[in-house]
Amino acid sequence: MLYLVGLGLSSEEDITVRGLKAVKKSCRVYLEHYTSILMAASQEELEKFYEKPVILADREMVETGCDEILRDADKQDVAFLVVGDPFGATTHTDLVLRAKQQGISVEVIHNASIMNAVGACGLQLYTFGQTVSMVFFTENWRPDSWYEKILENRKIGLHTLVLLDIKVKEQNYENMARGRLIYEPPRYMSISQCCEQLLEVDESKGTKAYTADTPCVAISRLGCPTQRMKSGTIKELSGYDAGEPLHSLVILGRQCHELELEYLLEFCDDRRKFKQDVLRDQEYFKPAPWVPPAEEEDE
Amino acid sequence: MLYLVGLGLSSEEDITVRGLKAVKKSCRVYLEHYTSILMAASQEELEKFYEKPVILADREMVETGCDEILRDADKQDVAFLVVGDPFGATTHTDLVLRAKQQGISVEVIHNASIMNAVGACGLQLYTFGQTVSMVFFTENWRPDSWYEKILENRKIGLHTLVLLDIKVKEQNYENMARGRLIYEPPRYMSISQCCEQLLEVDESKGTKAYTADTPCVAISRLGCPTQRMKSGTIKELSGYDAGEPLHSLVILGRQCHELELEYLLEFCDDRRKFKQDVLRDQEYFKPAPWVPPAEEEDE
Repeated sequence: MLYLVGLGLSSEEDITVRGLKAVKKSCRVYLEHYTSILMAASQEELEKFYEKPVILADREMVETGCDEILRDADKQDVAFLVVGDPFGATTHTDLVLRAKQQGISVEVIHNASIMNAVGACGLQLYTFGQTVSMVFFTENWRPDSWYEKILENRKIGLHTLVLLDIKVKEQNYENMARGRLIYEPPRYMSISQCCEQLLEVDESKGTKAYTADTPCVAISRLGCPTQRMKSGTIKELSGYDAGEPLHSLVILGRQCHELELEYLLEFCDDRRKFKQDVLRDQEYFKPAPWVPPAEEEDE
Repeated sequence: MLYLVGLGLSSEEDITVRGLKAVKKSCRVYLEHYTSILMAASQEELEKFYEKPVILADREMVETGCDEILRDADKQDVAFLVVGDPFGATTHTDLVLRAKQQGISVEVIHNASIMNAVGACGLQLYTFGQTVSMVFFTENWRPDSWYEKILENRKIGLHTLVLLDIKVKEQNYENMARGRLIYEPPRYMSISQCCEQLLEVDESKGTKAYTADTPCVAISRLGCPTQRMKSGTIKELSGYDAGEPLHSLVILGRQCHELELEYLLEFCDDRRKFKQDVLRDQEYFKPAPWVPPAEEEDE
């Protein structure tokens, strides 16, 4: 059996009881180690908690070396651990397909991920649109396909969850060119950097998907004891120090009801100002008021 | 401390290790019992697993009787259990706000919910739009505000998760009128009924948010050992027997890539037909092809 086990968000104890049982009975345990990190537990802490070794699986291993992961999984139990839920990233459906092709049974053990736990900010999950990813801009590579998606969401009043870039096990150009397996230290995008990139792209476009005054919620270390939320405009959050990673951002859409707003006000510096910012932003993309159809004249 | 603990989707063992610890040390344990059900565990099974009584909390208790739940939670630990994740429904942010107003600390322990575990169908979570709810139609009440939302999602190529109605502890009109606390047996909407209601409303509108041939994925008992997926058109699924509850439905948007389609084909009756249905449906709402801007004449 191949177990795909979600680890949840933060500590080694965020695994489910069922997930822990699967890990305990597996003869090999892999930890997917390139799309996210477990914020409050290291590889060593996991090994101590599981009482067995944990093999780090980087992108190459998962995308090219599935065979090693799946080896003998038709006869033995193998666990593949994923931070959050196993179905956050596409490559894991690939792993499931390959397993099935080899006649290996697969059991998925779900867990919380940023995609649903973001509801902790108080905005209803029902009113989120498509999720976007923000990558580190470099001198020559400043992808902004997310801009159109934020615009699409906001046109119909929906919030946008922005997932911030994580660089784990990246080589610099020189080491890559020389084939040296030397990696840069991991990098995690901060909320302030994300907001700066949002502002930069907004300036270069004319479509006003959002403005510097558009309200957002900054979420840092979701699910950790040190979790913090901050409500503010993009401009305000571009100067906000959210502390240790991981960070995420929610850009508000028009559909923010009274109780939700009340909840967000708990996280802002100036309640009166933030409320005004939200009310003003709700005027953007507001549908035209309903006009009753002209009645036919009686005579 | 008030612990809000997500129970995940199916069995008593889907609670996280951290969540179980919180339950173990709480002096009162409430189970929210009206927005969803734990599919493979009864109240008795939970009590046996936790080794303590579990108090069922219905809508009245949560919405009017927060005081009872919060009683002494500043001095003792109280656990409030929610199927899925605690932030699926708004009323729980209300509970958090009330607790904070009374100076009670709150700790949230997240878990999987349909909102992220739906990724198990193989469609990327990034390309889901807003979620809609489908309620049981009655003779006089056939709400269809979800129709416009599906249209909005599909116009920009996004999938729609449809959550199906659950009726727990409902009174019929006679018992309500006479003030008799007699409740109807619980009812759970089936995928086939949902599809029939989709077809009925589609016929009455002219906007073609979807058609009878729009491809969907039917998901039943997500996260249970008996979990089943079925890909098919709305018309086909209106005659599909998905078995025991709970059921959910995903209506596809245009953004379904090759690997995702390959995954969905595992769940259909006729691979060739379903593939054609998907390709044909992708023509709806397709953006106009990009036309390069006219170059200025050199001379």
